[in-house]
Amino acid sequence: MNMNDIILKKRDGGKLTQAEIQYFVKGYVAEEIPDYQASALLMAIYFQKMDKEETFELTNAMRYSGDNIDLSGIKGIKVDKHSTGGVGDKTTLIVAPLAAACGVPIAKMSGRGLGFTGGTVDKLEAIPGFQTALEAGQFLSQVNEIGISVIGQTAHITPADKKLYALRDVTGTVENLSLIAASIMSKKLAAGSDAIVLDVKCGNGAFMDNLADAAALGRMMCEIGVAAGRRTVAAITDMSQPLGQAVGNSLEIIEAIETLKGNGPEDITELSLRLAGIMIYLGGRVKTHAEGQIMAQQALVSGAGLEKLKSFIAKQGGDTAVVDDYSRFPRASVKKDIVAWESGFVHGISAKSIGLASQHTGAGRATKEDAVDLAAGIYIHKKVGDRVYKGESLATVYGNNKNKVANAEKEAAKAFSINREKPDRPEMMKEILGL
Amino acid sequence: MNMNDIILKKRDGGKLTQAEIQYFVKGYVAEEIPDYQASALLMAIYFQKMDKEETFELTNAMRYSGDNIDLSGIKGIKVDKHSTGGVGDKTTLIVAPLAAACGVPIAKMSGRGLGFTGGTVDKLEAIPGFQTALEAGQFLSQVNEIGISVIGQTAHITPADKKLYALRDVTGTVENLSLIAASIMSKKLAAGSDAIVLDVKCGNGAFMDNLADAAALGRMMCEIGVAAGRRTVAAITDMSQPLGQAVGNSLEIIEAIETLKGNGPEDITELSLRLAGIMIYLGGRVKTHAEGQIMAQQALVSGAGLEKLKSFIAKQGGDTAVVDDYSRFPRASVKKDIVAWESGFVHGISAKSIGLASQHTGAGRATKEDAVDLAAGIYIHKKVGDRVYKGESLATVYGNNKNKVANAEKEAAKAFSINREKPDRPEMMKEILGL
Repeated sequence: MNMNDIILKKRDGGKLTQAEIQYFVKGYVAEEIPDYQASALLMAIYFQKMDKEETFELTNAMRYSGDNIDLSGIKGIKVDKHSTGGVGDKTTLIVAPLAAACGVPIAKMSGRGLGFTGGTVDKLEAIPGFQTALEAGQFLSQVNEIGISVIGQTAHITPADKKLYALRDVTGTVENLSLIAASIMSKKLAAGSDAIVLDVKCGNGAFMDNLADAAALGRMMCEIGVAAGRRTVAAITDMSQPLGQAVGNSLEIIEAIETLKGNGPEDITELSLRLAGIMIYLGGRVKTHAEGQIMAQQALVSGAGLEKLKSFIAKQGGDTAVVDDYSRFPRASVKKDIVAWESGFVHGISAKSIGLASQHTGAGRATKEDAVDLAAGIYIHKKVGDRVYKGESLATVYGNNKNKVANAEKEAAKAFSINREKPDRPEMMKEILGL
Repeated sequence: MNMNDIILKKRDGGKLTQAEIQYFVKGYVAEEIPDYQASALLMAIYFQKMDKEETFELTNAMRYSGDNIDLSGIKGIKVDKHSTGGVGDKTTLIVAPLAAACGVPIAKMSGRGLGFTGGTVDKLEAIPGFQTALEAGQFLSQVNEIGISVIGQTAHITPADKKLYALRDVTGTVENLSLIAASIMSKKLAAGSDAIVLDVKCGNGAFMDNLADAAALGRMMCEIGVAAGRRTVAAITDMSQPLGQAVGNSLEIIEAIETLKGNGPEDITELSLRLAGIMIYLGGRVKTHAEGQIMAQQALVSGAGLEKLKSFIAKQGGDTAVVDDYSRFPRASVKKDIVAWESGFVHGISAKSIGLASQHTGAGRATKEDAVDLAAGIYIHKKVGDRVYKGESLATVYGNNKNKVANAEKEAAKAFSINREKPDRPEMMKEILGL
């Protein structure tokens, strides 16, 4: 077997065999196949696509390029949750405690992430003292004891994905359904949960900007999951505007706590309850996801979700006082308002522009080596459909560097459009696949 | 400017600007742009193609990535000749002395080449004592003195082409009209002749296996040449079977000498006279290429071409006695006949199989580091349309290593097909473009 022949086969529209895909992935991870051949193959895949079987084989080859986590020591049906990524997405911080409070064991590994804000792990680290690096034994026993643990990804999970993702990012080969699906599902399968809930974001702030593409991605990931023996559900959800009002690490943790207190924005509350409902259903605690949603709502109203968050923070060394005293979070020294230039209704908020603005504040990383400013970010006062009067603040930009905040403000101002007519609010849950 | 954006633009069907193409070529040669981004762009170009202007810009960027030769010190209209490469192609060794004998100054740089046999430079080095490395001054004064010099390519010509070609070769991105045309024409333009005759091979032993593709390549190269102010003619010629009877370095030199003596195979004689005719016409010695062909024929019949070859060999330090005594060439110690398994007519000879067989004998290089066996190769006794009787030799395989010769014999035997019906002989000259 020879890498040039594999490139030629795919370039000419051929179907790669299991052996060819494994040869490529193994050889690439072992550095026997150079980057320049890998990127040529990725571009050929971009144009010629992969069919279902090729995508399964690629997922599997990536999954087994590193460790697979054994969660069998945890009692119950473990349910994992993954978002394809958007702007202001703090859902895990709400959904995980809610599902855990309803008896679904959550043993989750999360990423740091490049991009608009930090990943879940960065956000958790905004809580003073919080530890995201636990030993395997401690991780498992914590889930058995309190029903929830969230830790950082270890280096041994899907090294093929890490290497391929970094290459795709700089060679124009990100936007391909099979490559995206294999990247996500290889990690989820290696992470060991019994069931998987995928939150596939759809809109201008997401990978997929239209429903057809998002649904195709969701369907493909469900098929991969099922083929690997995992119950997998994909919810296609709105990312045409930022999720909730907070974008940035500390800001998002505070919003997650507020949501668990019952004071969250409407959209993030709805999405969290629906996703938690699906997780509770997959975890075998109820007979339908609608019942699951009712159970999640009860956990919210009763404060059981918030209590679960507190014990989770405490167990991982964090300061639980933050839940009632937000001044304990890192605070920004610079803030700047974006002011409405006319009266009307907020017609659109480009999630992409808000995301970029958030990155400009320092809340997100541009390169792996960058540090994240935990206090920086953007707080949106007016969402799509809200009435606004000239001179009112649309959003506040937070940070610790005047220039960065000024840059971010410029970008964020571009995000808003105002119109005399009141627009419909976008529908949050667009489709649920795999139920 | 940023390479990832350039890749995305081409991937999505955009047209690259002069600035973008120069950024890529300069950055790649300077090693600021890595191979993996270059190969992704090349694959995107493979799928999305380049238009005429992009191809011109790429050619120019590659041309000026290194030195451009100044031939203005040579009197007269300098005419260069280039073949896209085939099996048994020793045309330069015949055409160059013929054209020079008719007063067209030939100041030519040739390559060594990877593949089926060595390049023209390797073939010339089969002549004992022959020097292919001359200083620039010596090169020019030799052309002024005797009308002809052929030397090896210096390292300073089109480094971008060298680097890109090596990359294309291992990333499945060879077969694209614009990339092929830019590679050839960047070198020809940098080499400094006033006019260019391109011999575009067409058939299973060539880059282009059908007339439409070969003509498209020829047309594109003519356009590039004309846009750069050079008269450029492309002849589309047959490569459905090997050219002439000899394949291999010494074998081909001997066949070239025999052709200049008037004893050459019909096909190589016809092709050489027609190409020489075009060169003599472009060199301004006659009014039409038909007149040029008659002049070339006279130089062949009178022996003026052979005399020119002799003085060319003498000037570059070679042993002119080889012209009358072929035993002075390197000789093979092993030979093996391929015998007809039935009687009939030779129906086809796969140029590709003969080419591979020739490479197996050691006559060609598999990697840049390989040495070429100057004595090895294949001599074809029966060409397409020839009658053959069972047990007669179709071809003889030569070499200096029993195993290599045995491997080559196996490959070469596959090349021949025999049929009861006499086939038409393939037409040598299929089309002439740019006249």
